[in-house]
Amino acid sequence: MSELLEKAGKLKQASKKLAVLTKEEKNAALVYMADQIAREKEWILQENESDLLDGKEKGMSEALLDRLLLTSERIDQIVEGVRQVVALEDPIGEVLEAWERPNGLHIQTVRVPLGVIGMVYEARPNVTVDAASLCLKAGNAVLLRGSTSALHSNKALVKVMRAALADTAIPGDAVQLLEDTSRETASQMFRLNQYLDVLIPRGGAGLIQSVVQNATVPVLETGVGNCHIFIDQSAGEKMAIDIAVNAKLQRPSVCNAIETVLVHKDWPFVAELLDSLHSKGVELRGDQELAATFPFVKEAFEDDWSCEYLAPILAIKLVEDVREAIEHIDRYGTKHSEAIISENAENVRLFFRGVDAAVLYHNASTRFTDGEQFGYGAEIGISTQKLHARGPMGLKAITTSKAIVQGNGQIRG
Amino acid sequence: MSELLEKAGKLKQASKKLAVLTKEEKNAALVYMADQIAREKEWILQENESDLLDGKEKGMSEALLDRLLLTSERIDQIVEGVRQVVALEDPIGEVLEAWERPNGLHIQTVRVPLGVIGMVYEARPNVTVDAASLCLKAGNAVLLRGSTSALHSNKALVKVMRAALADTAIPGDAVQLLEDTSRETASQMFRLNQYLDVLIPRGGAGLIQSVVQNATVPVLETGVGNCHIFIDQSAGEKMAIDIAVNAKLQRPSVCNAIETVLVHKDWPFVAELLDSLHSKGVELRGDQELAATFPFVKEAFEDDWSCEYLAPILAIKLVEDVREAIEHIDRYGTKHSEAIISENAENVRLFFRGVDAAVLYHNASTRFTDGEQFGYGAEIGISTQKLHARGPMGLKAITTSKAIVQGNGQIRG
Repeated sequence: MSELLEKAGKLKQASKKLAVLTKEEKNAALVYMADQIAREKEWILQENESDLLDGKEKGMSEALLDRLLLTSERIDQIVEGVRQVVALEDPIGEVLEAWERPNGLHIQTVRVPLGVIGMVYEARPNVTVDAASLCLKAGNAVLLRGSTSALHSNKALVKVMRAALADTAIPGDAVQLLEDTSRETASQMFRLNQYLDVLIPRGGAGLIQSVVQNATVPVLETGVGNCHIFIDQSAGEKMAIDIAVNAKLQRPSVCNAIETVLVHKDWPFVAELLDSLHSKGVELRGDQELAATFPFVKEAFEDDWSCEYLAPILAIKLVEDVREAIEHIDRYGTKHSEAIISENAENVRLFFRGVDAAVLYHNASTRFTDGEQFGYGAEIGISTQKLHARGPMGLKAITTSKAIVQGNGQIRG
Repeated sequence: MSELLEKAGKLKQASKKLAVLTKEEKNAALVYMADQIAREKEWILQENESDLLDGKEKGMSEALLDRLLLTSERIDQIVEGVRQVVALEDPIGEVLEAWERPNGLHIQTVRVPLGVIGMVYEARPNVTVDAASLCLKAGNAVLLRGSTSALHSNKALVKVMRAALADTAIPGDAVQLLEDTSRETASQMFRLNQYLDVLIPRGGAGLIQSVVQNATVPVLETGVGNCHIFIDQSAGEKMAIDIAVNAKLQRPSVCNAIETVLVHKDWPFVAELLDSLHSKGVELRGDQELAATFPFVKEAFEDDWSCEYLAPILAIKLVEDVREAIEHIDRYGTKHSEAIISENAENVRLFFRGVDAAVLYHNASTRFTDGEQFGYGAEIGISTQKLHARGPMGLKAITTSKAIVQGNGQIRG
């Protein structure tokens, strides 16, 4: 039997045991798992060193090597992350709805685990532990499919987690690493409906599209954010500039950073906005009028409006009004996070009503689209699709429900 | 441009207008649509007659012809169905959650339409109107992909609906029939992520699997039900027999009918149960012991335990206890509807905890897994997957949410 099928079978068995554990049993297991990761720090760092050496030999970029790198502090953060998951409220067992039918049937819907989750992700080894601890906390078994470049690190982390769990109420088999990282085996994993209840891809657009295009297992799509800020005519100078700078620069490489600012043509502070962004090192790409007026603004091509730069580059366009802003976002946006800066209540209403996205902001930065910032405590990803969960996904997003119907002999007439 | 792309583009435009209509505007449009279907009854029946003639020429079975058949009464039922949808509560605009963050951000999640729904279904022409009215009520545009055999009927129904809507606040373009029913075009539709937010297949296992296997658009999977009743040692004679007979025979052709009864080996009324089922014309397929004891019970093959007969055939097996029943259901069930008949509270608890299915019953027939029976007023299907909606799906299952965040200049530190 292949590694994939063998591990998938074990996960399914383990998920049944896991689903009926109490929150105390799960929390005790996670605490012990965190302790054991801390205790095995040296060995994990050694294994990570092997990945880094391989990466350097293969000419991996500094940025990628940094994503792959574990340090003593980063392992401390990983351990701390598991402890934070322990502190979260257990979503399992919650009664979602309860009602009685005229025939006396009493119906309850109750929150239960999804079952087995397939995580597909790229080089950051911290995802291995973050995802595992969230899945376990919500009563799910997890198949981890990381990238080849992090294989030594992932094997070490999973070995430590499994060994720790083996001494707890959570079966060690509830966490499995797919060590065969071939493309063929990935494709097979994406179609393993018999064993996997959901796939969660986390990584770049290429990874996510590969999962969406090839999967028959339901996918919780995360990721791509071509986010906008619309600065309305009535926007205050300081607030608009502060928010635009924050949303672009506080962390340009993430999906909730903005890529385009749309500015009402009569807003009086365009020069101040552009100067401020330019002075902070942002490369600006504007429409014809802006490029003709400001020497440091390059002219934007059509492609710029759809580009997720993930870098200190920003497209800027003057628009007639909120309606043109909504149309632009509708055409080029990715339904992630969109903001309006305005003191005009009617325009805010039109924006909230007219823009189709996971999260809409009035007078705040798009950077708040995040599980922790939303108060979910931790996140398994940010959903950019409309089914099941939309926007930041906390523990509840990796649960489902079952209906429990109590009768006293009812039959259907 | 192909018919598919042209109609998909129009649906996307129409969905934006539809999403912001009030419940009064949507209800008035649906009432008018119902009236116009009633008024065009004669013409619709004529067009249906063309489908029936074609079907007879192609040697279609009586059962299939009956599913295709429209009559004056059936059109009255269709019209009445639309009026019932009008009477349902409008789910759109409901505030799902509202909370404030320590930084002063005020977050609300609000229920909004999904956007554009692709319905893929088989010969029953009533689905054309049922699905359209539910989608419109929840603010969604709908692409209807029915079967070739019902094309005349579907064209007539959609023409009447579109003409009616054109005189209302709902754009006529919000309902489109895909007249090209080729397999290639269906495959293209299933991968039209740019325009379609969800696919809902309704029909037999083949249709549903074809959608699941080929789709990149998220799917709300409906359908296959290999449902069981477990009769525990403590079950009362009359209640157990009444429920088993009801769940098998009240309508054998549907997904929430049972296919297997598991009986505790020490339940004293096995003979009475089998006699009762046999006398009502049920073909019984039992394990070795039952087949050896009762002359009218054939021996079951391994395949019988996984078969969705959808007919008056029933598999029967004696089991040791509730644990063996749970294991059997786990192995052969399809996570649809499962029932325990028992007076033993601990066994009921074990069954509810251990069986992974959309709906679990204690002392009631599995036939209640149905949107109307659950009190949802109408249903768009019964979900057999775990994401988004599980079990009977009413109007809420065809909505999503967006988060609305109100700030006063918050940026992320």
